[in-house]
Amino acid sequence: MAVYTEVSDEALTAFLAQYEIGTLLSYKGIAEGVENTNFFLHTTAGSYILTLYEKRVNAGDLPFFLNLMQHLAARGLACPQPIAKRDGVALGELCGRPAVIVTFLDGVSVKRPTVDHCRALGVALAGLHRAGSDFGMTRANNLSVESWEPLFEAAGPAADTVSEGLTERVRGDLAVLRAVWPRGLPSGVIHADLFTDNVFFIGDDLSGLIDFYFACTDAFAYDLAICLNAWCFEPDGRFFPDKGEAMIAGYQSVRRLQDDEVAALPILCRGAALRFMLTRLVDWLNVPPGALVQPKDPLEYDRRLVFHRAAAHARDYGWRE
Amino acid sequence: MAVYTEVSDEALTAFLAQYEIGTLLSYKGIAEGVENTNFFLHTTAGSYILTLYEKRVNAGDLPFFLNLMQHLAARGLACPQPIAKRDGVALGELCGRPAVIVTFLDGVSVKRPTVDHCRALGVALAGLHRAGSDFGMTRANNLSVESWEPLFEAAGPAADTVSEGLTERVRGDLAVLRAVWPRGLPSGVIHADLFTDNVFFIGDDLSGLIDFYFACTDAFAYDLAICLNAWCFEPDGRFFPDKGEAMIAGYQSVRRLQDDEVAALPILCRGAALRFMLTRLVDWLNVPPGALVQPKDPLEYDRRLVFHRAAAHARDYGWRE
Repeated sequence: MAVYTEVSDEALTAFLAQYEIGTLLSYKGIAEGVENTNFFLHTTAGSYILTLYEKRVNAGDLPFFLNLMQHLAARGLACPQPIAKRDGVALGELCGRPAVIVTFLDGVSVKRPTVDHCRALGVALAGLHRAGSDFGMTRANNLSVESWEPLFEAAGPAADTVSEGLTERVRGDLAVLRAVWPRGLPSGVIHADLFTDNVFFIGDDLSGLIDFYFACTDAFAYDLAICLNAWCFEPDGRFFPDKGEAMIAGYQSVRRLQDDEVAALPILCRGAALRFMLTRLVDWLNVPPGALVQPKDPLEYDRRLVFHRAAAHARDYGWRE
Repeated sequence: MAVYTEVSDEALTAFLAQYEIGTLLSYKGIAEGVENTNFFLHTTAGSYILTLYEKRVNAGDLPFFLNLMQHLAARGLACPQPIAKRDGVALGELCGRPAVIVTFLDGVSVKRPTVDHCRALGVALAGLHRAGSDFGMTRANNLSVESWEPLFEAAGPAADTVSEGLTERVRGDLAVLRAVWPRGLPSGVIHADLFTDNVFFIGDDLSGLIDFYFACTDAFAYDLAICLNAWCFEPDGRFFPDKGEAMIAGYQSVRRLQDDEVAALPILCRGAALRFMLTRLVDWLNVPPGALVQPKDPLEYDRRLVFHRAAAHARDYGWRE
């Protein structure tokens, strides 16, 4: 949530000369995105977001992300559309950083999603999976099950200082997930980070999806499991069955879950919760002094795991035949 | 340069219901303004800036600032115009803070102003002084000559750790300024902080003035002295005579300086430089750990003071008969 790189009017004017989007009217650094520097950009041609990729983003992944957004936007999905320069290439360089201009999307992130928001998110998620089905590039999910043990080792013995018994709980989850993690489920492009911050609404209507910088190739149902975690729980770990039911029903109104996906849902939800608990835990234990970004509480996901460990069937998440 | 207060979609929607500016389409926290939290706001009626006043702003001063912006905008000055709620009052409350919505102004701040920019600024500054001449409220300048000695005492003996001999130089300036500070010059509303960040251009045309939160009642020529300091020097202390000449000529094309203002210009410039050196010095010596705001270098103004101490006449700043 910060502007890591200052961009002067002169540097930006020179950068914009590579594009056919009119002349500069205004730009403001916006406090959005943990990883990158973002500017709201207004030109004589319209409104845009200018993103400078800071060092946490692997520049080699950028063509995947940018091509994916172009592919999805071309199929009618409401997502930021990268603008190509006059040379036909979307990826540019500004102030020594990879940089891109995308279309500005109206919409507001909801802090506390309603049942209707959850249904709309389910519909949009299935639409994303469908729109991405003929995308030609792949990118491995480097935050899937194989990464969780090394992530936990990175946290080290300090884990128990965050919550007593956390190490023992995580070791138990890791053993189960390693043993039964489902393989061969229907897969394709998933968003993999569709938290409420990354979904825009205007009134009750979903107006767009943003921030594709964790997108990868993985099981569609795992994406749904991430969204169930992110949208259908209270911070104290309570699950809202009506929200889960609406999200799954919304998803299935566009793309019906197969039997193997239904069977796998509880373990996918447990894995998704562990994945976010672990990355948050590592960030929590490694806050640099004077950090601009407030780390998120890993224990919100430790509490969700209590629910997931007890869940026996997709019905527990609101799936209905 | 930070968002100090998070505003939820629910809180903002409820706040906007007090206004007649349509419904919410989007809002983004923007990294602008050292003292306040600002959001870019887009509604079905247009674009706005939403400001939440944090504790460094004295809430008792807000009616002065808001009425002033309304007064100036009504006289055609390009500045943010506070939007009144349905009850006719511009000042509201959001998330426990005084809050206001103003019109969004296009334009870009120039980091390195040209001679033409300086001329345009002079024209706009005189236009501001003229437009404010029939404004009914007053506000004392609490950062004028009487405040400088207490400010310097607040810095204390640490001043010399910032630059050797700084204490001695400041004591010399204070003695001179106290003795000869001009009284009775033509006065009225001045901006008092018209640095390049607070002036917008579109191409070479000045498109607006922002950030009136240091505005007060003081000598017009002191405002010009602040601008000469802010726009016409290099950080190393070098003065650009052509920029000063253009700014003063631009100013005089709208409002001619009187003889007493011309005579006072060198001492006003010296005082203005000391004022910014001192507030920067205090901020520099009091950076809280983990601060979000990078303090500005006080020594840029210590170096300008070398020039001002040697200046004998307004001609040295580019004034021409």
